[in-house]
Amino acid sequence: MKANVMMNRALSIRTKNKSTPSKGHGRGRGFTFRSLRESVQPELSRKLFRLIKLENDLIHTHEAAGRERTAIATQLSEWGEQTSDEAVNDISDKIGVILSEMGGLEETYVNSLDLSRTHLKMIRDTERSVQPSRDGKSKLYDEFQKLKAKEPQSARLVLLEQELVRAEAENLVAEAQLTNVTRQKLKEAYDVEFTAIIERAEKQIILAKHGRRLLELLDDKALSPGDVRMPYENGAQARQVLNDAEDDLKEWQPEHHHKAVSENGSETSKGKSPVEPSA
Amino acid sequence: MKANVMMNRALSIRTKNKSTPSKGHGRGRGFTFRSLRESVQPELSRKLFRLIKLENDLIHTHEAAGRERTAIATQLSEWGEQTSDEAVNDISDKIGVILSEMGGLEETYVNSLDLSRTHLKMIRDTERSVQPSRDGKSKLYDEFQKLKAKEPQSARLVLLEQELVRAEAENLVAEAQLTNVTRQKLKEAYDVEFTAIIERAEKQIILAKHGRRLLELLDDKALSPGDVRMPYENGAQARQVLNDAEDDLKEWQPEHHHKAVSENGSETSKGKSPVEPSA
Repeated sequence: MKANVMMNRALSIRTKNKSTPSKGHGRGRGFTFRSLRESVQPELSRKLFRLIKLENDLIHTHEAAGRERTAIATQLSEWGEQTSDEAVNDISDKIGVILSEMGGLEETYVNSLDLSRTHLKMIRDTERSVQPSRDGKSKLYDEFQKLKAKEPQSARLVLLEQELVRAEAENLVAEAQLTNVTRQKLKEAYDVEFTAIIERAEKQIILAKHGRRLLELLDDKALSPGDVRMPYENGAQARQVLNDAEDDLKEWQPEHHHKAVSENGSETSKGKSPVEPSA
Repeated sequence: MKANVMMNRALSIRTKNKSTPSKGHGRGRGFTFRSLRESVQPELSRKLFRLIKLENDLIHTHEAAGRERTAIATQLSEWGEQTSDEAVNDISDKIGVILSEMGGLEETYVNSLDLSRTHLKMIRDTERSVQPSRDGKSKLYDEFQKLKAKEPQSARLVLLEQELVRAEAENLVAEAQLTNVTRQKLKEAYDVEFTAIIERAEKQIILAKHGRRLLELLDDKALSPGDVRMPYENGAQARQVLNDAEDDLKEWQPEHHHKAVSENGSETSKGKSPVEPSA
């Protein structure tokens, strides 16, 4: 089955009935009481926790892919040796070297996945630390509203309001930290990931192309019974292919990564109105 | 840990004390009795059987990688949605689309791995079918030698020798089939594999580069407490990135694969002398 181009393609990856994000929560000018209360989550970091767990699964899977590729490389070479066919012996052994390098690429890639994951963890940790700040503010707000309804003349109302203002100031700091860490680390996490994917892919292409060159050194002209295979004479060329592959990998350089400047130009904005400041 | 360039690089992938293949088994001019007996393996197809098994493990691992990548895509999008940050929401959702496509690439790749594996299976099946031919010939040879030593004048010797010649003829056909299938299918198996690796890698590069463009649309300027984020205005641009990614994938074409002609030219041959014909 050939996968369709962008088979998962959509404006959103979410299921349709969930695709409209709830409005009005832009962290634009700080939180109103109302927007705060709406955005409080029982466990702010729960979804990210799960994401980090899934990234860990993927790390283990790519580790396994690397190990298995290396095992295949060895097995292919050993099979080739016992065929008693000098050409198959040599080519399968050298294809094995190529495949083994492919396995090694997974190892490097896994290190980058792991780095990417540490960036996500920093977001998670910040999310976790912001939760008590939101909870505290929310609790004070409830208390204030309750008292105001029950004893509108209570002297404690003034004190509560002062506490609330302080809690809000503290929370403003926490929320600024959260948005800063979230955006910076999200970008770093997936920049590391995409850069690692590109590196691995470019090196895979180098190896695969040289691998195909090796295959071309194997004469597969059909023999009739009793026919004679020409003696294998491509050993030196096959060694040269491995040398070329090694040279190409050595010379590989990451493409210069132009950090595109966001151009908030002619494109239409979604035009959501930022929430009102709470102060 | 950064993997060294060609860390597994060697002239051979085999362990050193095994790296010299046994000599004199070139299928060059058919088999002598001696070379035949040396090359008979208790289970000719055992090593290939194991290789095919390992390829199956790799298939399952890449299936898992695809599934896990897709799960990550969904989870990232869902996390972004609950951040209540419109920019993070949109970008994480669209990064999710990119990652989901990455997952889909594994699926296509798995189909090619599976095809590659069917080629290896054809070699294995042929190896299996050649074994009885070798065994039969070997048994006749033993019988002939034993009788010759014990009763050099026996009339049965002539009959046995005739049988042996017939068995050898039959075996010559089998061995020709084996070398033809082995070489052709080995090339096909790994040509499919390398071509699939290149396709997946080139598409991964397309997706990763557009993924990085998406990241650049996320403003990560640090805010001070109470600072205002500019309203998110990159929604249309982000959608355009996905359109571009889709277009690039649609336009992707396999590079024309020049089948390199084997040049048995100036390079030195290993100079092994082919075994003598047995007739």
